[in-house]
Amino acid sequence: MEDYPQHSNPEERSKHLNPNLRRRSPRSLRPEDYLRGIRSGDRPMLSRAITLIESTHPEHRELAQEIIEACLQLPPTSTVRIGITGAPGVGKSTFIDSFGQYLLEQGRRPAVLAIDPSSRISGGSILGDKTRMETLSRDPRVFIRPSPAGESLGGVAQKTRESILLCETAGFDTIIVETVGVGQSETTVRALVDIFLLLLQPGAGDELQGIKRGIMEMADLLAVNKSEGEAGEAARQTQRAYQNAVHLLAPQTSGWAVKVLRCSALTREGLAELWQLMTDFCTFTRENGFWERNRREQARHWLHQSLTDHLQQLFYQHPAVQKEIPLLEEAVSSGRLSPFRAAQQLIRLFIEPKP
Amino acid sequence: MEDYPQHSNPEERSKHLNPNLRRRSPRSLRPEDYLRGIRSGDRPMLSRAITLIESTHPEHRELAQEIIEACLQLPPTSTVRIGITGAPGVGKSTFIDSFGQYLLEQGRRPAVLAIDPSSRISGGSILGDKTRMETLSRDPRVFIRPSPAGESLGGVAQKTRESILLCETAGFDTIIVETVGVGQSETTVRALVDIFLLLLQPGAGDELQGIKRGIMEMADLLAVNKSEGEAGEAARQTQRAYQNAVHLLAPQTSGWAVKVLRCSALTREGLAELWQLMTDFCTFTRENGFWERNRREQARHWLHQSLTDHLQQLFYQHPAVQKEIPLLEEAVSSGRLSPFRAAQQLIRLFIEPKP
Repeated sequence: MEDYPQHSNPEERSKHLNPNLRRRSPRSLRPEDYLRGIRSGDRPMLSRAITLIESTHPEHRELAQEIIEACLQLPPTSTVRIGITGAPGVGKSTFIDSFGQYLLEQGRRPAVLAIDPSSRISGGSILGDKTRMETLSRDPRVFIRPSPAGESLGGVAQKTRESILLCETAGFDTIIVETVGVGQSETTVRALVDIFLLLLQPGAGDELQGIKRGIMEMADLLAVNKSEGEAGEAARQTQRAYQNAVHLLAPQTSGWAVKVLRCSALTREGLAELWQLMTDFCTFTRENGFWERNRREQARHWLHQSLTDHLQQLFYQHPAVQKEIPLLEEAVSSGRLSPFRAAQQLIRLFIEPKP
Repeated sequence: MEDYPQHSNPEERSKHLNPNLRRRSPRSLRPEDYLRGIRSGDRPMLSRAITLIESTHPEHRELAQEIIEACLQLPPTSTVRIGITGAPGVGKSTFIDSFGQYLLEQGRRPAVLAIDPSSRISGGSILGDKTRMETLSRDPRVFIRPSPAGESLGGVAQKTRESILLCETAGFDTIIVETVGVGQSETTVRALVDIFLLLLQPGAGDELQGIKRGIMEMADLLAVNKSEGEAGEAARQTQRAYQNAVHLLAPQTSGWAVKVLRCSALTREGLAELWQLMTDFCTFTRENGFWERNRREQARHWLHQSLTDHLQQLFYQHPAVQKEIPLLEEAVSSGRLSPFRAAQQLIRLFIEPKP
């Protein structure tokens, strides 16, 4: 079982560091080295720190947390976190490639992270292939990081949240979080970002009903991508259809009136308007207090998420539990014992004081 | 904190029953009374037992578990559990109303349960209104139970699983579990049933891509409902479109070749064919071992689900945790402490021996 240092004062805390961490070879880095590197814009250092976040090794995780705590002690910076979703084929990567360049021209410093949980049945990696954002990935001013592989959605999202913080400490002020359109991931990404953009494509207006509704309800902005050239009329129809549909939804808790617009990643039409709307959204929600309230609620959400993860880990690592689980799994799967009763018995092993 | 009796032998167990349960008034019922009532087809007794399952009161839950354990000791009966999903508007209730009657005519004894988690934003009850299945709900041979309200999806599903067992003990041999089409609930219902039916409607063929894919991949059977009269041609087109799409999906782990057919809840065309396919599916998967393996894996899944629930409950009821949570929530939501670190501190309070 891990030893959990409790001291939030950094000096006090360093005394309680894992001894393995203190006995570093001269070449290994301390949290303050990472912090200095990240703050000075050292890109490989940022990448290394995110790799620590993504690591499953307890020492790496501990070091990552030291870095994160150090970042939290810095004065907060003004950043915007943008979630982008859309059905497969809607052109998310091309859009981000193009929108990211527009942001650069506006003097923003974008970073792109991805949430890509493997679907329960089909699986599949989305941003694993960086080269999908061809122009952006070649620009040294931009930071792009694919989703960590082999993790649950919750796990990916926790790590993404921590990566956002590191990117912001490194001076990136516009964090784009890309999600794949598979239902649950949108809810998770919504809890990571300030603004949520749903990308559509021309002619997709028939799909207003059904499963998409929940995702529409989460969106602050909708943009019909691929609106260039001959698709213009279809795009306008789609825009109208969604604009009507949006009116029928429950009002946003932010008080913001959801907007639907058209854009083209190819010709870059509509990108300026979209960015203007995002800026308007930021101003509006900062003024009415929603922005701050939302970020606070998100932090609380991730605390409870983190608690669940910690608890599970602790439980399944417990020797008596590990020993007994196979027997009770067998009793349950053969129908001799109810899952509830078996769970009670295992929990009892977990909470009973060790002899 | 609850006391968890560990004894699976009923006599041994009864000595450890909650003393409040043993000191029952003469009018209150013992587990064996419930069991006798349920087995003899006493409908109000079945309803009462399900109400115990749905109760949040520890004594009711304990009594419910006694009843469930007693049911598990009985010889298993041959039943089939059918999950039914489909987008809103596809006619799920009318279909179940009609299909349930067909089942009755075939000598089956159907029970209908619902999984209706409130959507995170919009909420809403689906089967709360029993009268939606007008004919079926008036038939004394059928048992219909709406979804318990105010629960998480996981909570609803656990209770539904236990309700299925009670219904089967009461002699119902065809359990229909209805789900609302909102993404996550399908995955959960899939873990409760033997067969999963996706209802479609004519003309919905354009929506093959995107979010529905994951749900299509879970379905063993697809039926284009509302295929009567003028909709016939559109229904045939939809059937073809989905039949083609189904070929592109990864093969089912059951080895079953997914079928798409047309039906009409109104004229009852196609219901016989659908039931025949369901029977074929049962025979096929019973013979190749998937049926049994699937039920065993489901039981194991619910054990781990139940463990998560128990752990959370135990944790959040811990006095030191309860005292400290508000302070740490504040530290996290004001950005002074990371969720991970706060979780570590709370977990430490939880696992430290009481002074």
